[in-house]
Amino acid sequence: MLGRKFEVEHVLEAQQFDRELLEGIFGVAKEMEAIVEGRSGGGSTMLKGYLMATLFYEPSTRTRLSFESAMKRLGGEVLTTENAREFSSAAKGETLEDTIRTVEGYSDIIVMRHFESGAAKQAAAVSSIPVINAGDGPGQHPTQALLDVYTIQRETGRLDGIKVGLVGDLANGRTVRSLAYLLAKYDGVKFYFVSPDVVKMKDDIKEYLTSKNIEWEESKDLMEVASKCDVIYQTRIQRERFGDKIELYNQARGKYIVDRKVVDVLQSHAVVLHPLPRLDEITTEVDVDPRAAYFRQAKNGLFIRMALLKLLLLGW
Amino acid sequence: MLGRKFEVEHVLEAQQFDRELLEGIFGVAKEMEAIVEGRSGGGSTMLKGYLMATLFYEPSTRTRLSFESAMKRLGGEVLTTENAREFSSAAKGETLEDTIRTVEGYSDIIVMRHFESGAAKQAAAVSSIPVINAGDGPGQHPTQALLDVYTIQRETGRLDGIKVGLVGDLANGRTVRSLAYLLAKYDGVKFYFVSPDVVKMKDDIKEYLTSKNIEWEESKDLMEVASKCDVIYQTRIQRERFGDKIELYNQARGKYIVDRKVVDVLQSHAVVLHPLPRLDEITTEVDVDPRAAYFRQAKNGLFIRMALLKLLLLGW
Amino acid sequence: MLGRKFEVEHVLEAQQFDRELLEGIFGVAKEMEAIVEGRSGGGSTMLKGYLMATLFYEPSTRTRLSFESAMKRLGGEVLTTENAREFSSAAKGETLEDTIRTVEGYSDIIVMRHFESGAAKQAAAVSSIPVINAGDGPGQHPTQALLDVYTIQRETGRLDGIKVGLVGDLANGRTVRSLAYLLAKYDGVKFYFVSPDVVKMKDDIKEYLTSKNIEWEESKDLMEVASKCDVIYQTRIQRERFGDKIELYNQARGKYIVDRKVVDVLQSHAVVLHPLPRLDEITTEVDVDPRAAYFRQAKNGLFIRMALLKLLLLGW
Repeated sequence: MLGRKFEVEHVLEAQQFDRELLEGIFGVAKEMEAIVEGRSGGGSTMLKGYLMATLFYEPSTRTRLSFESAMKRLGGEVLTTENAREFSSAAKGETLEDTIRTVEGYSDIIVMRHFESGAAKQAAAVSSIPVINAGDGPGQHPTQALLDVYTIQRETGRLDGIKVGLVGDLANGRTVRSLAYLLAKYDGVKFYFVSPDVVKMKDDIKEYLTSKNIEWEESKDLMEVASKCDVIYQTRIQRERFGDKIELYNQARGKYIVDRKVVDVLQSHAVVLHPLPRLDEITTEVDVDPRAAYFRQAKNGLFIRMALLKLLLLGW
Repeated sequence: MLGRKFEVEHVLEAQQFDRELLEGIFGVAKEMEAIVEGRSGGGSTMLKGYLMATLFYEPSTRTRLSFESAMKRLGGEVLTTENAREFSSAAKGETLEDTIRTVEGYSDIIVMRHFESGAAKQAAAVSSIPVINAGDGPGQHPTQALLDVYTIQRETGRLDGIKVGLVGDLANGRTVRSLAYLLAKYDGVKFYFVSPDVVKMKDDIKEYLTSKNIEWEESKDLMEVASKCDVIYQTRIQRERFGDKIELYNQARGKYIVDRKVVDVLQSHAVVLHPLPRLDEITTEVDVDPRAAYFRQAKNGLFIRMALLKLLLLGW
Repeated sequence: MLGRKFEVEHVLEAQQFDRELLEGIFGVAKEMEAIVEGRSGGGSTMLKGYLMATLFYEPSTRTRLSFESAMKRLGGEVLTTENAREFSSAAKGETLEDTIRTVEGYSDIIVMRHFESGAAKQAAAVSSIPVINAGDGPGQHPTQALLDVYTIQRETGRLDGIKVGLVGDLANGRTVRSLAYLLAKYDGVKFYFVSPDVVKMKDDIKEYLTSKNIEWEESKDLMEVASKCDVIYQTRIQRERFGDKIELYNQARGKYIVDRKVVDVLQSHAVVLHPLPRLDEITTEVDVDPRAAYFRQAKNGLFIRMALLKLLLLGW
C-alpha cells in the first residue's frame, strides 16, 4: 500500500524543498491533475479511510476549500473548524500543544491556519501526525509558494533561465518573498522588482539573491519589464498595512496596474500570475487573454495540495 | 453512465420550469424517496466522486442541511461555507465572478445563498459548472417553490383543478409568489387570498393570474376558505418587515391562525402546508392531524434537491 | 445486518447506564479501538450510508470533532452546524421541537449540544431518530462521564474497590458530579474530595454517595490523597463562575496543582485524569510521565462515541 517514505514529515516552510524534491512533487501534482480531469464519476479512493483535520484559527475560506477539495478528490474525509480559537479562548484557554495532542487523536493529518508566525512549527514539534502549514500570520504559506512555482513550470515549460517581474506590494506579501527564495534554487533566473516606493522589496531578499548569484533589478517601468519577462507576478497592495494613511494607500494602489496595454506588450509565451484575491490591480479585460493564468494557478493549488496529502500519508 | 442531458443548466428561478419539466423532476424525486426510505444500510452511490460546494453568503442552516443531506444521500461529497462573505470582505474584497471562477475549480456543482437579488444569475453567467440558487435575498428560492408544488401533488394526487388558500403575509413572502407563478401553469386552479390588509397580495401577481385565466379572490373569512380548499398554505408574518411598528405587527400576526377549529372544517383529503419555520400561525395542536403536511413538505425538499442534483450532474 | 436492539434509545444522562450496560459498551469501545489502531488504509464501513447531524447551539469544537471523527472512522457521514441558534433566532424563531422534526428528516441520528439544561430530553421526546446529548448547559454530558469511567477501567484494570481523588472545582463541574454518580454503581469505591472552600463538593452528591454506602472524605492534603489513590481526577477552576471576584478565583486556582512532586508520590499503577482543557492545574512537566493519562482519556472519547453510534444505529 505505502510507497517509499516522503522526505518531509511536516510541510512548514518553502525552504524545506530543494530542486529534486520540487520536481518529484510536481510529477505527482501532474498525476493528480489527470485524476481530477480524467474522472468520469467515481473519482479516486487513494486516501479512503484517512481523515484530515482543518484547524483554522482565522477564516480563510479559499485556502480551506482548496485543501478540503484536495482531500475529498482523493477519497479522504475531513473534520473542519474555522473556529479553532475557541480551543484557546479566554474562558477555557489551552495551549496550542494541548490542542494538537487532542486533535491528533481524531485525525491522520492536520492542516493548520494560524494568525501567529511560527505556530505551525510549534504544532509540528509535538504532533505525532503530519502538520501542513496553511499560512501562519506574517510567516509562511508554503503550499502557495509551491503552487506558484508549479504554475510557472506548467505554463512556461521551464524554471531555469526565466525572467520574472514581481509587481505590487513586495514589502509585505509573503507570497513574493517565498517565491524569490524558491526560484533562487534554479539557474539563470532574473528578477525585476516593480513596486511603489512605500512597499519596495526588502534588503534581506535582495542580499539573499545576490549571495546566490541571482540577478535582480528594480524598475519603475512596468511596460518595459512586461515586454522582457516570461512571468509577470502581480500582487495586491494590502489596504490593512496602511492603517489610516488612506491617501498613501490609494497612490500605491493605482500605480502599477496590469491592463490590456501591459498584456499587449507581453511575449506570446509569457503569463500573468496573481495569488488572488485581486481587486483592480489586474483589470477584468485581461481575463480573456490566454496568457492570464491566475485562475489556472488557483486550480493548480488543488493539484499541489492533493500531491502533498498523498505524499505525507502514503509516501512516493 | 450519463443520461440524456437535463434541459436546465442552472437552477435560478421558478419560471424556468414548465409542466412537462416539473413532471419529469417529480418522477425523479419519487425515485429519490424510494432510495432514502428503502435504504437498509449502504445508501446510494449515484453521485460518488462528485463534489458540491455550499457557498452561503448568509446563514440558512435549514436550507444548507437539506442540500447537504441530499448530496450525501446520493453518495456525493460536500465543501461547505456559511462564511462566503469572507471572500468579498472589505480587506481582501473580490468580485462574485472571481469567487465563482475559484470555487468552480474545487467542485462540480455550486449551491449558492446570497443576500442580494440577482446574485445567482450573476454567478451562473461565469460558471462552467451548474449553479443552484438556494435563495438570493428578496429574489428567488426556486427549490422551495418546486418542493411546494411537489408536495401538493403528492398529498392531493393532482395539480389541475385544485383550490388553494394562501394565508398570511402575501406581500413579502417570496414563497407564495413563486407558488402562484408555478401553479398558474395548471388548468382550473383557483386561489383564495387571506391576509391582513397591511400584507395583501400585490397587484402584479393578481394581474399575472388574470392574464393566465386563473381565478382568484380575496377573502376575510379563513373558516369559509378552509372548508372549500384542497390546500391551505399558511405563512409567517415577517416581524422584520414591520421595523418599529410593533403594534401593527402584532395585529397582523394574530389575525389568521390555523388552529383546531380551522382544521375541523377542512375536507378529509385537504392538507395544511407551511414553508417553515413557523411561530404560532399554526397551533401545535394541529400537528397530530394527518392533514398537517408541513413536516412531510420539509422532507420533500430533500427529495426535490436530490432529484435536481442528480439531473444537473448525470442527466435523465 | 442489524444486531440485537440496544437497550437505550437516546443517550441523555449518565444515570441511564447500569453496570451491565456499561460493561457491554466498554467491550464495543475496545473493538472500536482495534478498528482505529489496526487500520491500514480503508477503515471501517460499518456505518456507510448513515448520516449524523451535529446540532450545536453553542460551539464546542473539541466535542464536535470527537463525535464527527467517530462517525467518519466508521464510514458514516456528517451534517454539521455550530450555528443551530439560527433556527430559533429572534427573527424567525421556531421551537426546538420543530427544529428536531425538520432535522430528523435529513439524518439518521442527532448529536446535540445546547446551552439549556433539559434541552436534550426535550428533543428526544419528539424525535423519531436517536438523540445523543453532547452537553446541555449545566445539565449533563453523558458521553464525557462514560469515557471517564472507561478510561479508569482501561488504565487501572478495574472499577470495584478503586480509590478516586476528585480535585479542583467540585461544585460546578458537571464532570465530577456525573463521575460520582456512575462510580457509585461499583463496590468498595472510595472518594477523596480535594478542593478550595469556595468550590467544595455539594451536599446532594455527598448524601447520594452515603445512601449508596459509598465512602467519601474531604481532605486539604493533596499529597496524602495522591499517595493513596488509584486515580487522581483533576479539574479546572472555572474562571467564568467567579464573575468579578478575580482575587478569589486566583486563590482557588493556585491551591491544588498536580505537579512533579504530586506525581512522585503516586503509586506506580495510579493515573492522573483531566477532562481537558487544562490551564495550569496540571503542570506540563507531568505530561511525560506514563501515569499522565489525560490525552489517552481524550482519545477514549473517540472509542466510546464510536461504540454509542454503532449501538444506537445497528444494535449489539
